[in-house]
Order: sequence, then structure tokens, then C-alpha cells
Amino acid sequence: MGKKRIMLPVEEVDISAVKYENEVIKAPHLTGFLLKLFVKIIEAPLLGSLIVYLMKKENRMVELLRNTVIPEAPMFKPEFPPQEPEPGVIIMEEDGKPEDRVESALKCLPHYDPASLWNADSSPFRYWKIRDYAHAYRSRLATPSMVAEHFISVMEEFRNKKPPAPLLVSFDAEDLRKQAAASTQRFQEGNPLSILDGIFVAIKDDIDCLPHPSKGATIWMHEVRPVEKDAVSVSRLRSCGVIFVGKANMHELGLGTSGNNPNYGTTRNPHAPERYTGGSSSGPAALVASGLCSAALGTDGGGSVRIPSSLCGVVGLKTTYGRTSMIGSICDSGTVEIIGPIASMVEDVMLVYAAILGSSPADRICSKPAPPCLPNLSSSESLNVMGTLRLGKYTQWFNDVYSTDISDKCEDVLNMLSKNHGCKVTEIIIPELNEMRNAHIVSIGSESVSSLNPHCYDGKISKMTLDTRTNLALFRTFAASDYVAAQCLRRRLMYYHMEIFKNVDIIVTPTTGMTAPIISPSALKFGESNLQVGGYLMRFVVAANLLGLPAISVPVGYDKQGLPIGLQLIGRPWGEASILRLASAVEELCGEPKKKPAQFYDILKVK
Amino acid sequence: MGKKRIMLPVEEVDISAVKYENEVIKAPHLTGFLLKLFVKIIEAPLLGSLIVYLMKKENRMVELLRNTVIPEAPMFKPEFPPQEPEPGVIIMEEDGKPEDRVESALKCLPHYDPASLWNADSSPFRYWKIRDYAHAYRSRLATPSMVAEHFISVMEEFRNKKPPAPLLVSFDAEDLRKQAAASTQRFQEGNPLSILDGIFVAIKDDIDCLPHPSKGATIWMHEVRPVEKDAVSVSRLRSCGVIFVGKANMHELGLGTSGNNPNYGTTRNPHAPERYTGGSSSGPAALVASGLCSAALGTDGGGSVRIPSSLCGVVGLKTTYGRTSMIGSICDSGTVEIIGPIASMVEDVMLVYAAILGSSPADRICSKPAPPCLPNLSSSESLNVMGTLRLGKYTQWFNDVYSTDISDKCEDVLNMLSKNHGCKVTEIIIPELNEMRNAHIVSIGSESVSSLNPHCYDGKISKMTLDTRTNLALFRTFAASDYVAAQCLRRRLMYYHMEIFKNVDIIVTPTTGMTAPIISPSALKFGESNLQVGGYLMRFVVAANLLGLPAISVPVGYDKQGLPIGLQLIGRPWGEASILRLASAVEELCGEPKKKPAQFYDILKVK
Repeated sequence: MGKKRIMLPVEEVDISAVKYENEVIKAPHLTGFLLKLFVKIIEAPLLGSLIVYLMKKENRMVELLRNTVIPEAPMFKPEFPPQEPEPGVIIMEEDGKPEDRVESALKCLPHYDPASLWNADSSPFRYWKIRDYAHAYRSRLATPSMVAEHFISVMEEFRNKKPPAPLLVSFDAEDLRKQAAASTQRFQEGNPLSILDGIFVAIKDDIDCLPHPSKGATIWMHEVRPVEKDAVSVSRLRSCGVIFVGKANMHELGLGTSGNNPNYGTTRNPHAPERYTGGSSSGPAALVASGLCSAALGTDGGGSVRIPSSLCGVVGLKTTYGRTSMIGSICDSGTVEIIGPIASMVEDVMLVYAAILGSSPADRICSKPAPPCLPNLSSSESLNVMGTLRLGKYTQWFNDVYSTDISDKCEDVLNMLSKNHGCKVTEIIIPELNEMRNAHIVSIGSESVSSLNPHCYDGKISKMTLDTRTNLALFRTFAASDYVAAQCLRRRLMYYHMEIFKNVDIIVTPTTGMTAPIISPSALKFGESNLQVGGYLMRFVVAANLLGLPAISVPVGYDKQGLPIGLQLIGRPWGEASILRLASAVEELCGEPKKKPAQFYDILKVK
Repeated sequence: MGKKRIMLPVEEVDISAVKYENEVIKAPHLTGFLLKLFVKIIEAPLLGSLIVYLMKKENRMVELLRNTVIPEAPMFKPEFPPQEPEPGVIIMEEDGKPEDRVESALKCLPHYDPASLWNADSSPFRYWKIRDYAHAYRSRLATPSMVAEHFISVMEEFRNKKPPAPLLVSFDAEDLRKQAAASTQRFQEGNPLSILDGIFVAIKDDIDCLPHPSKGATIWMHEVRPVEKDAVSVSRLRSCGVIFVGKANMHELGLGTSGNNPNYGTTRNPHAPERYTGGSSSGPAALVASGLCSAALGTDGGGSVRIPSSLCGVVGLKTTYGRTSMIGSICDSGTVEIIGPIASMVEDVMLVYAAILGSSPADRICSKPAPPCLPNLSSSESLNVMGTLRLGKYTQWFNDVYSTDISDKCEDVLNMLSKNHGCKVTEIIIPELNEMRNAHIVSIGSESVSSLNPHCYDGKISKMTLDTRTNLALFRTFAASDYVAAQCLRRRLMYYHMEIFKNVDIIVTPTTGMTAPIISPSALKFGESNLQVGGYLMRFVVAANLLGLPAISVPVGYDKQGLPIGLQLIGRPWGEASILRLASAVEELCGEPKKKPAQFYDILKVK
């Protein structure tokens, strides 16, 4: 018993008096036998609850959620005030055909000059982008079937790796050949479905894509959740002629940020195979970063698209909550998850985003969305917008990173944007970041337990990884009243961010607080619990999930070890166009020279 | 470990195969020393959790919430499909002045004939209604100040009762005289603010009303939650000239359905003072039933307006979630509570409802409400509507009552409506009633714990009643995942009800499964836990709270012991006008003869 803490109503909080608190996580790094023992203890009915209670108390979580008077009412899902229309955009038809939206999106891109790619013999390394593939197909320099064969032989290579380090957990060479043949045929007849026809795309294993099962990279989920049809986002891509390579590996059930997976093997970072990709969309990011796919779909409930995109040096977009349909994904009932595209370049992300965007009535979104838009990058108005852009930077938070390489590089980018485009960088303060983290973990954790409980009851828990079991043991201790309190905190954080967005257009942070972490060999067989690494990886990503804001990670360079660094741009609700515009400008400033990843495959093979 | 249960998606459930399960509650009836002991045990950290866990398992609650795959996504607050406009109504201006709405409401009432009241010397007992008071004031037969003096002397009487059985927990005779004098003055000047000017209204102790504290009938709440202004609903009534008599007694913090209150004394049922009023709006219902107030405001999160209205033989309206503003009430952050009026007659409920209706932007309601309406009872169109009305009756549920007096009487009323108005009574089936009860108790319980936690931490728990502490000990065991699962069940029950409302206009049930329960003398000093009585009282009320539907209780007669029986009408979302119309028709058929309550006070005293 003590003295309760009383939070002032948000309108009365003195923002200028807020002090940034460096995030300090006290938890052991556990692998192998120690991890097994730890899981046994925390799953024990009484002792386990006690231990977790003490851990939470140590991290002030109990105090925040139970001993604090929070004046605000709960906000169970993101609720946005009405938004001003974005400038310099083209509106996408939400209820239209995906291929028509992709056509509109094409009009937003700067002029495509094939010469710049094809003529030079020795150009600096760069990824093939979608329009390169499209040009190659239409100029008969390559066919989807040829690309498919290259892809298949790489998969053969991966099948023989020891220890296993797969990119895909479900792969069907015959199905791939069939799709490729159909696409090749369409090109022969001069009838491609869209610019995306024949483009190789990977689908994270928690999104449904026929003919594959969806396992969430578990060894049991597909037994209780059969796949009967494509997820809505996949179906939209399919009608554009996309070729699906299979189901990409991920951190089991999305419940982790490293990408470690003892069930199938841990996907390696193409830039440094002894290092993690980040997660949970490990396979999707790696497939793109290695050149094997032009794009991938991932899910992002706690940074799971942006973290691996940042660590793997590719572009990852977390869409506004409700902007894309969650129908046909394993995490379709939550309040923080979205489906978002990963690709090597911003323009490719824009094309895939255009195809998949739009929620369904069955998605049951609360607020009526603003119309989806893309920045018209080929217009001068777009350039003018850059000059008016106000960027928000919370410097102490920005600098709370593992190595100054990261904050220095990201700050350089901001200076370049200022200098080259006239963007104005403003100092901002975001209160209650610790509260925000807690509210997020309680929300996503509770919602995960809710959907996994019946399967745990049914004996599946022994089939889950130790890491998952550790997390679930923690999540199971959240009381219903903690969940309600977290929703009240969500309302507070939403208020603070909406106030910030009155004065800035885009909040800028490093995407992650560290670059790709090393994989301890002892972590491969049974997994690992490393909350400190998790803390660094998640440091900047949670606001966009808890509050439903759009956010994109753009690669901006490398640290001293040559590992990719990502910059995150967080936009207003429904503000994808604005962050895509800025991302494109950042890419232009920083996109080259690119380092060719250690594991890179040219499957187009036209030069 | 066992086998999980899998619920079919609601669209696939075979309604015709649903079997009604009589509600069986296994829990001891505890008072006095045994209750004290029980609370000590269940508040103990480990043993207590174990005991509650076993109780929940016994009642299948754990199985429902943790071992069941629920395919639906959570619905955290009521979300309604768009509704057709109601026929035969007058639309109220939601953003207009309360007194203007009251004026519009007046036009909806049938012609008022003072002669019917004033001429006959010995007429059967009936309550003075608001228009009687209004007539008396305007004809100078009485003044508000005269009425105030009569009221004050009755309060004196109550002050001396042993054991204490107050109607009000906060009363200020001088403030009452001041309000009455001001109103009297307005009548003298010929300037009454509205038909409600000079009308005596009681406010439940969880709704703010100056100059009184709001304690929620606790002994400590007002110390941590000072009242600075009227609640919005109170303020609206005040601008109509209403006179507030004080803060009405209630079941502590609203967490009970009997009305038992050891802090201040238990309010007695005016019809039978050895019996409960029902709760939690015990004082409000008793003040109206005893003739001391024309109307009262109560809150209803689990039947708390309708249950005491039914047991005390008065009319109680639970409004649609979001129809009235919760600003300025203790339960302003929940997903099931509303503020609603209690009065002796339907027309009085209509007048008070007209004044208070309308949410504020700060109420943060999800769906855009349909415009508020009242039935135009003075129009022939309204009568025609009666003939087209389809009434839904779930017979096995309807008959699951303590005494057949209740179901017989309610069925008689349905037959009368058929015969006299041509209403069509249709058999309906509502699946998953047990799930609905669980979802409701988890929702309201978790939300209560969330707001009370910091005060418990601060030492207030020893100041709460044993009954409250018993409930909180149960509520504290709800896991966050239980809360999420409950929200998924809410979505299912919403679907079933919306499907029913495609074929019926109003669902009809008895309001309560039993009439006013006896008060055990041993229950007065420390309270009691009687979950079986609670189960009977709450049997029919929960749907309207969980799903946010409007529902009204109308008195229809008496059981063999002369205790009032109430009939409940549940309407579509925003369907207050329809249920008020039907309630008015029921009242006309059954409203007389009324039995004069054992404790009745004529404070108008004009005959």
C-alpha cells in the first residue's frame, strides 16, 4: 500500500517540464538450458506469477497501470480527429480495381529512363526495381518463367544450408512455375494485367496466400486454421498479375523483433549472415534485401515491418490502422496490427501500396477514413510541398541509441533535407513514452493471449518456442483492469501526438536504436530471450502502432560495420502520401551508393 | 488441459437448434460474520485467487472465455448498423436548448384534462404527474415553496428512522428552499422556464449536482473526487427550472442490484418497507414511488435504473448508449453505463428525457447517433403504428422467473396488446445468453476495477462495503485476455439481436425474474452477498447494457403479495420513441388501478 499517483488531464500537462527518461530494461539474456529453465519456472502456476509480478514491479509497470488515477476515458482503437487533405497528391479509388489504382500510382512516379540502367556496363550496385522488371518483360529481355527458374535454383541452395536458415517456410516450385507461365503468356499476348504483372512478391507466413498454409511460422497453427482463400491484400495483388513465391519466414506468431525461429531456422541478414534480419517480418525483408523479390507483404503490430526493413536496408511502410484490409491474416482482430509493403525502393512500395489499400466493411473500422492518396512525385507542386515541410525531432529520444553512428547519420539526413529542400526541423517533446510502451505491450500482449488461449488449453503450448512461451507467461499476468488502463493511456498519447501534429507535419526518428544484432549460436536451437536488444529495436516504433499512425522506414546509410541504418518518418493519420513524398526525397539524397549485400542474387540476369 | 471449444461464426449458427439453459447460480448467501470471513479469504493473495478461480470454473466462465475459439473480432463499444427512421415521431433538436426540447415533447403528449383529476372527490389512487404540478402552480393551487416545506418535513421524519433507511444521502434544506423560492418567484412573475419548472427531481449519488458532493454512496469518494459543477444532464434540467432535492441513496458504487447500503442505511421499498427497492438506483426509484419526487435521474450499467423501477412500480428508461451525456458522473468512462430518467408515468419520463438527451463531443461516442425522437402520442399516425408493431418474445427465457405471477401478468399484457392494438407477438430465440451475461460482467467489472484500483492502493478498500469487496475480488481475477474475449462475445450478441430486429420491432420480457426481495435483518449492518437473488434481478436486463440498446420498464400490476411487477420493452438502437410509444399503450391498458404504496407522501396536498 502506498500513495496513488494522479495524472493531470492531458490538457493541463506542462509539456515543457517533461524530462526524457532513458529506457532501462532490467532482464537477463537467456538462451539454451537457462531459457528452458526460466520458462519452466514462469509457467508454474503460483511461483511463476510471483516472479512475473516482481519483474513488472521492477519495471514500474504495475505502478503505472494500477496505482495511477488516469482521468481520460479509454480509447480502445485509434480514433482520429478529421484531417486536412494532403497537398500535391492523387487520390486513389478505395473501392476501385487494384489494377486501376496501380495505373494511377504509376502516374505519380517520376519519369522512368531505361537508359540509365541498361546502358552503363559498370554501374554502382542497385536493386532492380519494379519498373526495371516491367521494362525487361515488355522488351523481351526476360520472361517471368526465366526469372522463376533462377529463383527456384536459389531455393535449392537454401534447402541445403546447415543450420537451416530459410527465407520461405512454404515453397511450391510447381505452383511458382505455373504462375510464371501464365504471366509469361500474358506478356506474349501483349496483355499484362498491370505494371505489377510478373513481379515476384513474398507473403509473410501470417497472411493467407493459396495454395500455401498459414502457420505464423509455428509448427501447428495450420492444423487449426486452414486456408480457404487468399487474404484480401493478396487477392488484390493477384488480380494485378503478381507472382507469389511462397510464405516467408517470420518470428513465431509475430511475437518478437529479432526474427529468431527455432522451428524452421533463423533467416539471416543478407548484409551479414551472422546477424539477425530483425522481426517479426524476417523473411519478407530478407527476400527483398537479397534481390530475390521485388516486394513483400508483412504485418506490423509492434514495428514488425519497419524493424527488419531498417536492419536489412530496404523500405518498409506501416500503413494507417484501417488503411489496408486485415481480412485473411492471423492477426486480424487486434487494435494495433496492419499489413504493409516492403520493397527496395520507395516507388515500389508506392505501387504495391496502391494495389492493396482499402479496408472492407467487414474490417469494422471505427472512424471513416480519409481518401487514400499518393504523392504526385512527377509534379512541381510536390517539390514545392517539400519546401514547406515541418519535421519534428525529439532530440533526447532521437539520440537514445546504441551507437552514435545511427543518430549521427539520421541527423545528417535531416540537415541535408534542410539544406536541399528547405524543410524546417523543429524540436518536439513527447511526454509519457514509458506509458506508451506499457500501453502498447499490454494491448498487443492481451490480444495475443486472447486468441492463443484456446490453443494453449488444447495442448499446443508445448509446441510453441520458449521465446513465445516467455512472452505469453508475461502477457497472461495482465489483468483486465490493466487493459482498460492501457486504453486510457492510448487516449493520452493520441492527444499529445495530435497536438504535435498541429506544429509539425512529420515526426522523424531513427527506425531502430541499434543495427542488426549478432546471432548467438546458442540461440538458434531453442531461441532466446533478450529484452535489452528488443528494447533497442522497438525504441521508436511503438507510437505508430498504438495510435494507428502511418510510418515508413527508409535506408539512409551504413554504420561502421557496414550494417544498414534506417530513418523513420511518422505521419498524421491517413498521411501516407506525405511520408512517401519525404521518403522519396530522402532516398534521392541518401539512396546511393548502395552496398551490395553479402547474400545477393540477381534473378533477372539481363546484364 | 482438455479440448478447446470452437464457436461457429455467427452467420453459420443454427438458431433453431439453440436450447434455452435455465440460469443456475451456485453461490452461498452470506451476511454478517460469514460474509466478513469470506471477504478476508478471497482478498488473500494466493488462496483468494484460487477460490475465485474455482468459483468461476464452477460457473463455466473460465471455459467460455479462455478455452473457446471465438472467430469474431472484438467490439469494444456498441457499434450499430444504420437505422431506419422511426415512424410517427417528432425529432428533438440534439444541439438545441433543453427547455425548447421539453416544449416539443409537450406537443407529443395526449391532451391534458385537469378536470379528470381535480373534480372527482374520491378517485382511485394515482401519482401526481408533472402536468398536474404544472397545472397546480399555474392555477396558484400550490407553490414550489409550499411543496418544499412538505418535502422537508418528510425528510425530518426519515432522519429519525431506526435503523436508518434514508432516501437521500445528501440533503440541504436551505438550498432546497432557495431553489423553491426562485421557482415560486418565476411563477409569480408569469415566467416559468418550462413545464418542468418547480418539479422536484432527485439525482442519484453518482451524478454530480451542486451544491452536493458525489459519493456514489461510499464514505470516501467525495474526498478524492470533488464536485465543481453540475453534470451535463443535471445542468440541462436546471435550465428548465427543475428543483433538485438532493443526492439519492444507491447501492455502493453501483455494484449491486438489491440497494443494500451499510454506509448510510438501506432504502426501503415504499410498497413494502421490509423489502428492498432493488438497485443500484435505490433512492431514485423509492423517491418517485413514494410520491416525494416527480422524477429522478439514475444510472444503468447492469439494470440499475430498470430493476428498482420494476420493483418499486414506476417507469424507468435506459437510454441508448451515447444518447445522454455521461459527463459529470462517476461512471463516465465505461462501455455499458448510461444516465436515464425514472418517473411514475411514461409521459413524465418523456419530458425529462427530452430535457437531458444529447451527447457532447467530449462523450466520444463511436457511431454517429440517429436523431433523437419522441413518439407523437397525440397523432393518429402513432395509433396506426401500434397496429403494425411486431413484438418478440423468447418464451422459455420469458418464463424463467421465480414466480409465475410475473410471467403470467406479462403474458396477459401481451395478449391485451394483441387484442386491443393488433400488435403481433412473434416467438424469437436469443442464442448464447450465458455468454452474454459473462461478457457483461467481465466488461463492467473490469472497468470498475480499473477506476477503483488506485483508490484501493491508497487504502480505501477497508472503507468499502463487504459486498463491494467481494465483487472487486472477483473482478480482479479477470485477465486482460478475458476482457478481449468478452468484447468478441459482445460482437456476437450484437449480431444476433440485429438479426432479431429485422423481424421484430421490440423485444418484450419481464423486467426482473423476481419481485422485491425480503431484507434479512442480518444483512443491514454489513451488507450481504446473494448471487442467486442477483441472478433473478438481472436475468433480463443485461442485453440492453452490453449492446447499448434502449429499454424501458413499465409497471403492469402486482403479484399475489401486492408487490409491483414490471414489463421490459427493448428497442432497436436509438429506438427510444418506439419503446416509449408502446410503454404508453401498456400504461393505458394496465396503469390502473394503482395500489397506494405503504409509504406514500402527498407533498402537493391540493385536495
